[in-house]
Amino acid sequence: MTASTLSTSVHIEDVLLLGPGPTNPTNRVMAALREPVLGHLDPDFLSLMDRCKTLLRKVFRTPNSLTFPVSGTGSSGMDLLLVNLVEGEDKIVIAVNGFFGGRLAQLSQLLGANTVRVEAPWGQPVDKDELLAAVDRHRPKLVCIVNGETSTGVYQDMSGIADAVHETGGLLLMDCVTSLATMPVEVGQWGVDVAFSCSQKGLGCPSGLSPVTIGRRALEFLDRRLTPVPSFYLNLAEVQKYIDGVDGSRLYHHTASSTLYYALLESLEEILEEGLEARWARHEKAARYLIKEVSALGLEPLVAEPDRLHALTTLIVPERLDEARIRSRLRSEHRIEVGAGLGDLAGKVWRIGLMGRNADRAVVDRFVEALRAVL
Amino acid sequence: MTASTLSTSVHIEDVLLLGPGPTNPTNRVMAALREPVLGHLDPDFLSLMDRCKTLLRKVFRTPNSLTFPVSGTGSSGMDLLLVNLVEGEDKIVIAVNGFFGGRLAQLSQLLGANTVRVEAPWGQPVDKDELLAAVDRHRPKLVCIVNGETSTGVYQDMSGIADAVHETGGLLLMDCVTSLATMPVEVGQWGVDVAFSCSQKGLGCPSGLSPVTIGRRALEFLDRRLTPVPSFYLNLAEVQKYIDGVDGSRLYHHTASSTLYYALLESLEEILEEGLEARWARHEKAARYLIKEVSALGLEPLVAEPDRLHALTTLIVPERLDEARIRSRLRSEHRIEVGAGLGDLAGKVWRIGLMGRNADRAVVDRFVEALRAVL
Repeated sequence: MTASTLSTSVHIEDVLLLGPGPTNPTNRVMAALREPVLGHLDPDFLSLMDRCKTLLRKVFRTPNSLTFPVSGTGSSGMDLLLVNLVEGEDKIVIAVNGFFGGRLAQLSQLLGANTVRVEAPWGQPVDKDELLAAVDRHRPKLVCIVNGETSTGVYQDMSGIADAVHETGGLLLMDCVTSLATMPVEVGQWGVDVAFSCSQKGLGCPSGLSPVTIGRRALEFLDRRLTPVPSFYLNLAEVQKYIDGVDGSRLYHHTASSTLYYALLESLEEILEEGLEARWARHEKAARYLIKEVSALGLEPLVAEPDRLHALTTLIVPERLDEARIRSRLRSEHRIEVGAGLGDLAGKVWRIGLMGRNADRAVVDRFVEALRAVL
Repeated sequence: MTASTLSTSVHIEDVLLLGPGPTNPTNRVMAALREPVLGHLDPDFLSLMDRCKTLLRKVFRTPNSLTFPVSGTGSSGMDLLLVNLVEGEDKIVIAVNGFFGGRLAQLSQLLGANTVRVEAPWGQPVDKDELLAAVDRHRPKLVCIVNGETSTGVYQDMSGIADAVHETGGLLLMDCVTSLATMPVEVGQWGVDVAFSCSQKGLGCPSGLSPVTIGRRALEFLDRRLTPVPSFYLNLAEVQKYIDGVDGSRLYHHTASSTLYYALLESLEEILEEGLEARWARHEKAARYLIKEVSALGLEPLVAEPDRLHALTTLIVPERLDEARIRSRLRSEHRIEVGAGLGDLAGKVWRIGLMGRNADRAVVDRFVEALRAVL
C-alpha cells in the first residue's frame, strides 16, 4: 500500500529549512526513514548500529571506541557527558560567548559544580590566552568549549588548548553540534576528550539522536567517580552495556529507535562518499555566496571573516526592518524558515543555516529572491 | 524522486515484531514518518504538537494540562519524572515484581533517595495490603507502581491506592509503558499523579518518544523542591518553557523531532478512531487466542488468569527445549522476533507481544505455525 492510498491525518507542507537546524534531509535519508522498524536487539539492527559507530568515528576523526548516538536530541548528548563527568564541587571552566556556552554553564551549576565562566562578547570567539590563563589558575577537572556557537555563528579555533588542559590534569569537552560535517572537526588531532553533536544539522537527518565520542582519559575519570551518576537513561556505564555489550552480548538498556538509526547511517554513508574535506569546502562556498548576495540588500554578517561558522550565518537586521514580520512572511509566503536571534541577539539578527543538502548555490538564490520580494 | 530510484545503503528485511516492543507500525503511521521535516518552532509543527498533547490526554484518560511526549525513549520519561521529583534522602516506596520495578528502585537509589522496595515474586502482582502497609509506615514522598510489568507480563490493579498515598501526603507514579492503549489505563479515575509510557508498544510508533502526564499536585511538589534538578535535558521547568511556552510564546529548549511527532499524531488519531475500549478488547481477545493456540504445543503462560497483561504474554519454555536456539530460528527462518526473558526469567520464558496492529488473530496464526515448524 502506498501513502497516497491511505487516509492519513498528517499532511505537512514542504518548507525550506534555513534556520539553525533541522535542515532538510536528502531523498536518500528520507527513503531510509521508511524502512521497516526492527527491534533494538535484532541482529540486523545491532550490525547496523556497529556500522554507525564505525562511520561516526570517521566523521568525528577519532579512534575512540566509545563513539555512538545518544537516544535523544543534541542536548541529550550535552547532558550525558556532564551528568557523568561532573560531580558536586568539581571545578569546571567554560568558554561562554553565546547561548550554548551559557547552557553548558547552567547545567554545570545545576550539577553543583564550581563553575568558572571565561566570557567573550556574543559574535566573537573566546580569547585563547584568557582561557588558558583560567585553566592555569583553576586547574579545572573539565574545560568546555563550543566549537560552533549556534546562537552567534562563531567558529572557535580549538588548536593548542588540549595540551594545557591535560597538563593540569583536566579533560577537554567540545560542543560540535553545528560544526560536525560542515567544518573541520578533528577530535583526535585536537586532543578533545569528549564531544557531542546532533543529527539534524551537518548530518542532515531528522533530530532525535546525539552522536557523542568519549576517549580513554574520560573513562578513567569516570572510574574514579565517588558519587552515583544521578540518571539511569543517561548513565554512561548503563548505556555502555547495551551499546558495547558485556562479554559479547548486548544487554537491554533502552529501546533505540531503529528508524532514526537508518536515517543516520544513510547520511553517514552519503557524507563519506562526498568526502569530509569536500563537504567542508561546499559549506564554506555556500556561506560566502550568501554573504555576497545579501550585501546587495544591505545586510551584513555579525561575525568577522576569520571566525565564521559556515553552516550558520548570523545577519544583522537593520533597525528600520521589522525582524519578526519579515521572518514570518518568509515562512508564510515563501515557505522558507530562517532562525530568529536567541538570548542577547533576539530581535537583532537572523540566523541563516546552510547545512547538508542546503549548502548549495541554488538554495541561496531561492532565499535571496524571497527575501528581496519581502523587503 | 521515489525511494526505488535511489541508491540507498539501508535495506531492511521486514520482521514480524512479536517481542516486548517495538511493534510493527501501521501503514498510516509509516506514511506519516516520511512527511517533510519541520522546524521545532515552526507554527505548523507547534499546532501539531498541541494536537498530540490533546489526544494524549484522551489516551491517558486525564485532564492534566501537562501531558506531552518527552524527546527520548520510554526510559527517558522514567528519568524525567524521578530526576525532577526525587531529592536526596526522600522516602520512596516502590512496588517491585519484575525488572522494571527494579529499575525504578535503581534510579531512586542513584538519586540518593531512601528507597523502600515492596516485593512480590516475578509473575505475580504486588500485594496491595503490603503496599498500603508500607505507605502507612513510611509515609513516602513518592510511591511508584508498574501497571504493566513488561518483564513478566503482569498487569497490576491500580484501584484503591491513590487515596492512601495522598492521605499520607505523597504522590503516586505509574509506569504504563506496556499498558497504555492496550489495557485500561485511567490516570484520572485512579488518582495517579504522574505517569510515563512509550511510543513503540501500544501506540504502535517507532521508539523515540515517551509520553508523560504530570498532575497539579506533582507540580506543587516541584515548586517546593530545595535543591537543583541535576539535568538540563530532562529538567521539567526548562522543558515546559518549550512545550507549554512562556507568556504565549514557545522558548527553545531542544530540537523536538517532527518526524517522530508525525508518527505519534497519526497513531493517536488511529487509536481514537478505533476507540480505546474496542482496542483494549482486541488486545485481550488476541492474547486469549494465543494462549489457547500454544497450549496445543504444550506451552503454558507464566501469569495466572486475572493478572495477565494482554499486550505481552510470557510463555514458560519447557526445560527440554533450547530456548535461545528456537528464538533465533524463528527470527532467521520465519522473520519473527519474540522476546527473551529478562533478569530472573532469562532463559526461562518467551515474551510474546501482541501490540497495536499485531493484536490480531491472523498474526497469532502465523506465529503459531512458525513455532510449530521450528519445534
